[in-house]
Amino acid sequence: MARVRNILFVMCDQLRWDYLSCYGHPTLKTPNIDALAKRGVRFTNAFVQSPVCGPSRMSFYTGRYVSSHRAFGNFVPLPLDERTLGDYLRTYGIRVAVDGKTHVEPNVEGLERLGINPRSKVGKFLLEGGFEAYDRHDGVLADGATEEIAENKYTKYLRKKGYLGENPWLHHANSGLGGEGKVLSGWHMRYAQAAARVDERHSETAYTTDRALKFITDCGDDPWCLHLSYIKPHWPYVAPAPYHNTYGSGDVVPAKKSAIEKTHAHPLYASYMRHAAGVNFSKDEVRDTVIPVYMGLVKQIDDHIGRVMAHLDKLGRMKDTMIVFTADHGDYLGDHHLGEKELWHDAVNRLPLIIYDPDAQANGMRGKSESRFVESIDLVPTFIEAAGGNMPAEPLEGRSLLPLLRGEKIKAWRDTIVSEFDYSFRTKTRLELGRPVKGCRTFTLRTKQWKYVYVDGFRPLLYDLKNDPEEFEDLGEDPRHESIRAEFEAKLFQWLVRRKTFTSTPDEFVAGWLKDPRFSSMLIGEW
Amino acid sequence: MARVRNILFVMCDQLRWDYLSCYGHPTLKTPNIDALAKRGVRFTNAFVQSPVCGPSRMSFYTGRYVSSHRAFGNFVPLPLDERTLGDYLRTYGIRVAVDGKTHVEPNVEGLERLGINPRSKVGKFLLEGGFEAYDRHDGVLADGATEEIAENKYTKYLRKKGYLGENPWLHHANSGLGGEGKVLSGWHMRYAQAAARVDERHSETAYTTDRALKFITDCGDDPWCLHLSYIKPHWPYVAPAPYHNTYGSGDVVPAKKSAIEKTHAHPLYASYMRHAAGVNFSKDEVRDTVIPVYMGLVKQIDDHIGRVMAHLDKLGRMKDTMIVFTADHGDYLGDHHLGEKELWHDAVNRLPLIIYDPDAQANGMRGKSESRFVESIDLVPTFIEAAGGNMPAEPLEGRSLLPLLRGEKIKAWRDTIVSEFDYSFRTKTRLELGRPVKGCRTFTLRTKQWKYVYVDGFRPLLYDLKNDPEEFEDLGEDPRHESIRAEFEAKLFQWLVRRKTFTSTPDEFVAGWLKDPRFSSMLIGEW
Repeated sequence: MARVRNILFVMCDQLRWDYLSCYGHPTLKTPNIDALAKRGVRFTNAFVQSPVCGPSRMSFYTGRYVSSHRAFGNFVPLPLDERTLGDYLRTYGIRVAVDGKTHVEPNVEGLERLGINPRSKVGKFLLEGGFEAYDRHDGVLADGATEEIAENKYTKYLRKKGYLGENPWLHHANSGLGGEGKVLSGWHMRYAQAAARVDERHSETAYTTDRALKFITDCGDDPWCLHLSYIKPHWPYVAPAPYHNTYGSGDVVPAKKSAIEKTHAHPLYASYMRHAAGVNFSKDEVRDTVIPVYMGLVKQIDDHIGRVMAHLDKLGRMKDTMIVFTADHGDYLGDHHLGEKELWHDAVNRLPLIIYDPDAQANGMRGKSESRFVESIDLVPTFIEAAGGNMPAEPLEGRSLLPLLRGEKIKAWRDTIVSEFDYSFRTKTRLELGRPVKGCRTFTLRTKQWKYVYVDGFRPLLYDLKNDPEEFEDLGEDPRHESIRAEFEAKLFQWLVRRKTFTSTPDEFVAGWLKDPRFSSMLIGEW
Repeated sequence: MARVRNILFVMCDQLRWDYLSCYGHPTLKTPNIDALAKRGVRFTNAFVQSPVCGPSRMSFYTGRYVSSHRAFGNFVPLPLDERTLGDYLRTYGIRVAVDGKTHVEPNVEGLERLGINPRSKVGKFLLEGGFEAYDRHDGVLADGATEEIAENKYTKYLRKKGYLGENPWLHHANSGLGGEGKVLSGWHMRYAQAAARVDERHSETAYTTDRALKFITDCGDDPWCLHLSYIKPHWPYVAPAPYHNTYGSGDVVPAKKSAIEKTHAHPLYASYMRHAAGVNFSKDEVRDTVIPVYMGLVKQIDDHIGRVMAHLDKLGRMKDTMIVFTADHGDYLGDHHLGEKELWHDAVNRLPLIIYDPDAQANGMRGKSESRFVESIDLVPTFIEAAGGNMPAEPLEGRSLLPLLRGEKIKAWRDTIVSEFDYSFRTKTRLELGRPVKGCRTFTLRTKQWKYVYVDGFRPLLYDLKNDPEEFEDLGEDPRHESIRAEFEAKLFQWLVRRKTFTSTPDEFVAGWLKDPRFSSMLIGEW
């Protein structure tokens, strides 16, 4: 009998793995998240399947690599034949809902072709990537997104609280106030330190938490899986008071970068360094302005995680709720002369990942850390196993972490992490590099010692993580490392050949089809 | 204004490209198919995407490589997000129906998950791979396939004609009569020369043709696309009189095989030589018994193609009907010490392909042959263009043949053919080779000079088609060809990296998303 009855799947957007005190940040204190780590297991080698929101999340939600689920960029709808967390858990009677961001692009065209009513139960789930849209909101509402703004629950909430105008998300929650009542747009990082034009209680993080508490209360004793998915600390880097100035420039850790990164930089890397985010985050003034606010946003999340924990404790739900705390990818924040995300460095590919398992079998592991290689695709199988379900034979590609959470003996574990990224949506870079839309794929393979990056149409990159853990020296053209590169190229080739791009037909069927009475009496080539 | 109004898409099952007189067979005369070639274009370098029914057909029907449509074996349902010929042509008001075989595995589980009623219009199309099941029947009904036999229209027809019993398909249409009234089962090739226990008029080929004539008549002036899909000359090798003895052993061309093929044979090849079909077709007695009947079955099809042509002529439909004649793959018939299909040789990968284009623009090409590399995925785009439709930006991977049919100047054409095969369903071979179900993929790349075969987990094969057009000498281990093999390995790697496994999000969207008003005012990393 499984002890796990509910699952609280917390995700932050663009939260770097090393911006939590339990992961070693020297001045940013996150006692509530640290407390969760003390009650659970903290993974020190957890990685994304793609260092960008949409593709990374679709891997989290499907348990499959990007090449398999095929939603290769933001705004690429998940193919309708991809099964999601919601598909799996709902079969066990679990309510699976989202509060916050998913980045699921509604597959309206797909539904139309299949004649599925978008307002039907199935249609609604499919449009939301398998989640019940309890309170879906993805943030990042630009002024032109009229329809999205109109339908957004958080926007409606802001209006109700008196934050008026066409787009209160941008002009209140994500903008500050300057002299003479001037609104300082959150699109510009120079205004990061102005407090948001909303009361903290009405900010995105507070609102999202409020909704989660209500959801958990309302569910009562019915089993649930809530994806509590914070939009922050994703840009716009704007925090409500007092978090806008909780930290100062003295709290900013130096950027991890080296001059050698700029000599003979790979063309793709060089192009990204020229992006506005890269250019700006390379300046101390920008880092000193933005990073304290980024830290404040994390601090705010930590405080609200404290509220969630207290609520679960009060309801007696800590005894039967599995809690996951993670992110969808990191943020360069000036490391490697870059801003934003999308390439191969640990700053964006490594994840914070803490899992609290209420089951008594996990007692021996509480407060420990686990250094084995974990991927985002492991969560769906973990949830299925925790919920006591049968692991489907297809099409999951991850592996349940339950044995790690419960300190079981494990014979073999993976030795390679695979992360994929397609830069075709970065039109400027694509055109600079002279690539067609379908010629922009990259694959990052990581082992204990090496990180290898395959870039379609260009030379690969290679880092020796043992001797260069900061990933400064690109050995992608070093003649002494030719055999290592060849080894990784062969490994990637194998990986591509063996992708489970199909979603049906379990191995068991393939192995046993001739026993099916439809075929068993058939003879082929018999004399 | 397009002149093509209707499309007759004729496919034979397991018909070798060189078993037609217009393709050079010395004794098998196919005057009706030859006459079609005289009115159209005959392609001399047309190839399958997979040398086995299901995967090959799904490529024909989707216009996509097997890696993309993902139905990697027989009995693997086509993912529901794959668009098919029916999806494309129906949008232009064309009725798209099948008469005969498709090998589409109904994706019942997929429909159930999406809440699509299998009896709804959409549901029925999806279960049939996008075709209206005018008269779907796939043949090969083993005795245990009780449900399939009960529902089969041809079976019902046979019963109505007085061919009784549980399984008239097998015991009448595909069995002969021996001494003392003994039924000689078509499963055994030794009985091939006995005439089928049905009147020729009631045989599969005749029945399927009758249905096509009725369909065409009934459509009147409404546009249609009919997939007239003969089950023959696929085994069971049983023909009705007089076709059972139209040809004799004197008409049998020698097997293309060489003793060198057996020395150091690649493990996969060696295993296939040990299959019953390979062992038996290696005997002259078997070839002399079976091949005359195979030829008779082709001759019968040719006669019925004559009926179809006469019918179209009579109705005046030759002026607005495009006609395609092709097959889903070939048959080894003892070549290379093999029977059946599934590997890489031309005997099974090369296709007969004749296309008649009624448009006056094609007049200059009538009766000509075309030697450029053509793949089965080219038919869907050809049909779309012929029907005057807009070519969808995604997800087709083939290329319209209309310019070739109309003698237009073409700058660049493909120089490589890709065929894929997964032998995991061949359990005996898989276990002999010690492979997991997901470790059985093969890829065949063909250029003008070379044929390279990648076999997961084993060394590749290589043939020099210029100096060894019969494909006898496997250079897969020849040290002098190492660089050629490396070149093809790199080519395959590239091909895998660039597969369109996703079915949405055209390149145009990717290139232009920042112009979308939802995003155009958004700033990333701006100071």
